[in-house]
Amino acid sequence: MPWQVYLSGEIHTDWRERVADGAREAGLDVEFTGPVTDHEASDDCGVAILGAEERPFWKDHKGAGVNAIRTRTLLERADVVVVRFGEQYRQWNAAFDAGMAAALGKPLVTLHPEQHDHALKEVDRAALAVAREPEQVVALLRYVMGGKL
Amino acid sequence: MPWQVYLSGEIHTDWRERVADGAREAGLDVEFTGPVTDHEASDDCGVAILGAEERPFWKDHKGAGVNAIRTRTLLERADVVVVRFGEQYRQWNAAFDAGMAAALGKPLVTLHPEQHDHALKEVDRAALAVAREPEQVVALLRYVMGGKL
Amino acid sequence: MPWQVYLSGEIHTDWRERVADGAREAGLDVEFTGPVTDHEASDDCGVAILGAEERPFWKDHKGAGVNAIRTRTLLERADVVVVRFGEQYRQWNAAFDAGMAAALGKPLVTLHPEQHDHALKEVDRAALAVAREPEQVVALLRYVMGGKL
Amino acid sequence: MPWQVYLSGEIHTDWRERVADGAREAGLDVEFTGPVTDHEASDDCGVAILGAEERPFWKDHKGAGVNAIRTRTLLERADVVVVRFGEQYRQWNAAFDAGMAAALGKPLVTLHPEQHDHALKEVDRAALAVAREPEQVVALLRYVMGGKL
Amino acid sequence: MPWQVYLSGEIHTDWRERVADGAREAGLDVEFTGPVTDHEASDDCGVAILGAEERPFWKDHKGAGVNAIRTRTLLERADVVVVRFGEQYRQWNAAFDAGMAAALGKPLVTLHPEQHDHALKEVDRAALAVAREPEQVVALLRYVMGGKL
Amino acid sequence: MPWQVYLSGEIHTDWRERVADGAREAGLDVEFTGPVTDHEASDDCGVAILGAEERPFWKDHKGAGVNAIRTRTLLERADVVVVRFGEQYRQWNAAFDAGMAAALGKPLVTLHPEQHDHALKEVDRAALAVAREPEQVVALLRYVMGGKL
Amino acid sequence: MPWQVYLSGEIHTDWRERVADGAREAGLDVEFTGPVTDHEASDDCGVAILGAEERPFWKDHKGAGVNAIRTRTLLERADVVVVRFGEQYRQWNAAFDAGMAAALGKPLVTLHPEQHDHALKEVDRAALAVAREPEQVVALLRYVMGGKL
Amino acid sequence: MPWQVYLSGEIHTDWRERVADGAREAGLDVEFTGPVTDHEASDDCGVAILGAEERPFWKDHKGAGVNAIRTRTLLERADVVVVRFGEQYRQWNAAFDAGMAAALGKPLVTLHPEQHDHALKEVDRAALAVAREPEQVVALLRYVMGGKL
Repeated sequence: MPWQVYLSGEIHTDWRERVADGAREAGLDVEFTGPVTDHEASDDCGVAILGAEERPFWKDHKGAGVNAIRTRTLLERADVVVVRFGEQYRQWNAAFDAGMAAALGKPLVTLHPEQHDHALKEVDRAALAVAREPEQVVALLRYVMGGKL
Repeated sequence: MPWQVYLSGEIHTDWRERVADGAREAGLDVEFTGPVTDHEASDDCGVAILGAEERPFWKDHKGAGVNAIRTRTLLERADVVVVRFGEQYRQWNAAFDAGMAAALGKPLVTLHPEQHDHALKEVDRAALAVAREPEQVVALLRYVMGGKL
Repeated sequence: MPWQVYLSGEIHTDWRERVADGAREAGLDVEFTGPVTDHEASDDCGVAILGAEERPFWKDHKGAGVNAIRTRTLLERADVVVVRFGEQYRQWNAAFDAGMAAALGKPLVTLHPEQHDHALKEVDRAALAVAREPEQVVALLRYVMGGKL
Repeated sequence: MPWQVYLSGEIHTDWRERVADGAREAGLDVEFTGPVTDHEASDDCGVAILGAEERPFWKDHKGAGVNAIRTRTLLERADVVVVRFGEQYRQWNAAFDAGMAAALGKPLVTLHPEQHDHALKEVDRAALAVAREPEQVVALLRYVMGGKL
Repeated sequence: MPWQVYLSGEIHTDWRERVADGAREAGLDVEFTGPVTDHEASDDCGVAILGAEERPFWKDHKGAGVNAIRTRTLLERADVVVVRFGEQYRQWNAAFDAGMAAALGKPLVTLHPEQHDHALKEVDRAALAVAREPEQVVALLRYVMGGKL
Repeated sequence: MPWQVYLSGEIHTDWRERVADGAREAGLDVEFTGPVTDHEASDDCGVAILGAEERPFWKDHKGAGVNAIRTRTLLERADVVVVRFGEQYRQWNAAFDAGMAAALGKPLVTLHPEQHDHALKEVDRAALAVAREPEQVVALLRYVMGGKL
Repeated sequence: MPWQVYLSGEIHTDWRERVADGAREAGLDVEFTGPVTDHEASDDCGVAILGAEERPFWKDHKGAGVNAIRTRTLLERADVVVVRFGEQYRQWNAAFDAGMAAALGKPLVTLHPEQHDHALKEVDRAALAVAREPEQVVALLRYVMGGKL
Repeated sequence: MPWQVYLSGEIHTDWRERVADGAREAGLDVEFTGPVTDHEASDDCGVAILGAEERPFWKDHKGAGVNAIRTRTLLERADVVVVRFGEQYRQWNAAFDAGMAAALGKPLVTLHPEQHDHALKEVDRAALAVAREPEQVVALLRYVMGGKL
């Protein structure tokens, strides 16, 4: 049975590819899932499918509803949740996903630079591992799935 | 892993076919489930299988029990629940299914004409998307499963 | 410990008063809860508190959100849920509450005239008692709490 | 039975006092809870009680563990969770609390200025009300608890 | 906080009184609950409150529904569930209650003569104690609540 | 996805074969599970595997523990639970399984002759269908799985 | 509402008294619970109440069942679980309680000397705080309940 | 569907191989899982992947977090949990796993020599079978999966 690993958070760097490439090279039986990473599609999906809105608040509300159909389904299916906080943006949705994962009892891994350590201390405390680089996430999966360092 | 999508509600129009056809054309890996849509069979199943009743109340009671074996099993298996409210009938069972889906934490999509907006406001508030046409349900599934608008 | 009984559904007749009066006369240790029954306040609460909306859909959406803070809290606290379907209106929120109560495993009592029996068969099947008059609800509470017919 | 309302998030303004004062004036039967709002104590509690650490990461880790004993206990007891996002700081712990509240099925209210609307759209989508001022939170509680606008 | 102890099963002997009397003499802070033990009222409650039925099956069905409002509420509130199997009758409802208690994770105590040991082995296996006399149930409560043999 | 149907209860008649044969003939995609039906093996498994006991009570206790490893695993996997009460024996384990199934929210079907109706009224009330003959169970599965009467 | 704190583990030193005395002096609104700490009573309770056993295994089995009625009830009621590992004995029941607390999502505090750090690393990892002295447990409770260092 | 059996506890003898070999010879459809049994890798995984620590406590803490990603995932997937206590070491993690399995409702089997009976009485009481030799575990699986003694 493959492991389901949900990759939450930052969408502006190639960290998901680095994790996925590393897992493939290591021959791990993993299915990676995550949010829609096409920023524009993610912002527009609500109004594009369900009809236009004049107020930005409701445009966002519709879009967030549509995206939540995906993210909640995949988050609940996940065996492990990895949450990436990048160097920019507020990324509250990443912290929100981490909170859901923690409440659902999912093993949580955070991935962020040291500069965020103090601000993320509550999230990191709920995590079972705090990684700095995507390659460490691959090493974690390699070890927890196959027992090899 | 295919997505399980439960299609609840109205049984007198072809909306389920329109959703299923659209999903097939879009190449989505979905298994659609739903209640028995043969109205007569659905009404008669209790007495046909378990024995006749004189009072209509108990005929309905038996039938509803038998149908619930199916609907609860499939509702609990579902990743997403779509509930259709048509232009006629009271359709309390559709609203009942929506309440169960909400309490079970299933992502909920409603599908109904604008004329029901006020009467359905509590149900719509619990939904992650409110669609008007079956084709919008297909577009939602296409987006949430594949990330494509 | 008093019993918490949530009275859901129809807000245009005096059925809640009849239940509460009967319970008081019977000396039952019950706390009755329910939705806000001031129709206008219930419709307007979202925009009155959180700001105006041009589109009726979003006015309803805001109001339904605010009302849900109350109804979900009280529904979850309830020991027993009674759902009343009156002779008029579609009352989808009543059926929605019944679905939530069923999924949460709350003992459910329905209260409605015979004319709705067929349309409510799925909801009635999930109920532990189907009453026709508010006084029967009082008699039910009197019996289940005190063992007296 | 008083309502338990957990006030999560920003600790640098007087919003908690404004909510509590308003609730007192309105005569609401509410018990407000929340994290320790003494910033220094909150940062130091781990090492002060359990022993010093050289590395800031482990100092934070210890402190976050101690604070979580409080916040998780009170969050789980809460009937309603209000999460405030102020104008400054990253406030990931607020979003994390919101995620936990959502996964636990707690009615969620967010409180933040419009400037954060886009960044908070996923959190707001999971909320039943989005307020801008503490006084709106009081008005919400007054309405949902007593039915009065 | 008093302990809630649900006394399920046999209604034709005075075992509940013996348990309650013993607990009172031992000064235990216990609230005992249980099904309606007036056999006739228990059999008739459905038709007496909700209307007559011609077929005995539906009379029983209505009555069992009404009684379940009581028994499920009290069983779920219980800290400890004691199930008594007497020397006569089939007492399937007692075994049914024991199954519910086990699935709900309630500490279960059975009370029955040795002659039923083989027939009750599955139920006894799910229990934390198997008693022969009501006085042993009192001794159990006295010990588990106060630590005194 | 095949349906998992757990067949609990009586082990001295051929009802399981009749259900399984009927399902096969109807071409249903069902996996039937159930307890070990070799009466002697079921009674002896504890002492045969884990070592002899002098007292019958502990022999039964050991055996019931071993059997519970099987029955609880399969009961929890089941989509539907069918419980058969035959004409003889006390069959408390069948009622116990029914109670577990009810508390776990599994759709429950009972199968028994009319002579047990009064004694089984609480169990039947928790069931969604009451059948008299194994062939009715086949008809139920055929209908709920395929929608055909 | 007082906090319920379950004190699990070692019964041969006065650590529970030190925690309770400190909490009393600090004026904390706490109710401490725990296992029966009279070693002899704890060992003998099964056979003393339910009848003698020849084999030590079954004597222990009976006693452990009786004690579990108490410990599971109090553990499930607890807001916080403190588990003490002393310098002697294997104390597997303490680690077992810690595992239950972790799976139930209870905030967990461990209390043990440094010499056990490596052997207890899995248990400590599941804890929100690792204390060395009972007075630190008091300081933790004082802080998490009242916000004071 | 194969059974998932988690083998927890002692890592210094060949008991896992004896169980797995026996199951293979018996032709059982089982997937065995368990912790990483390479002692050194298990101790070092945290610092090897996530970075060095000076203090042994944090080295252990990091390692235990990483191992928990594996063990919790596999424990939650398991149908049956077998916990082995060997003749040496304190093995608190084994008892901790047993506590988690018990709280999660997993059928639990313990495997240990008689000399530990008294010290393990609470753990054994929560188990459905207490075995002495790995071959008995094979016999248990053979019986519960296939019904053959």
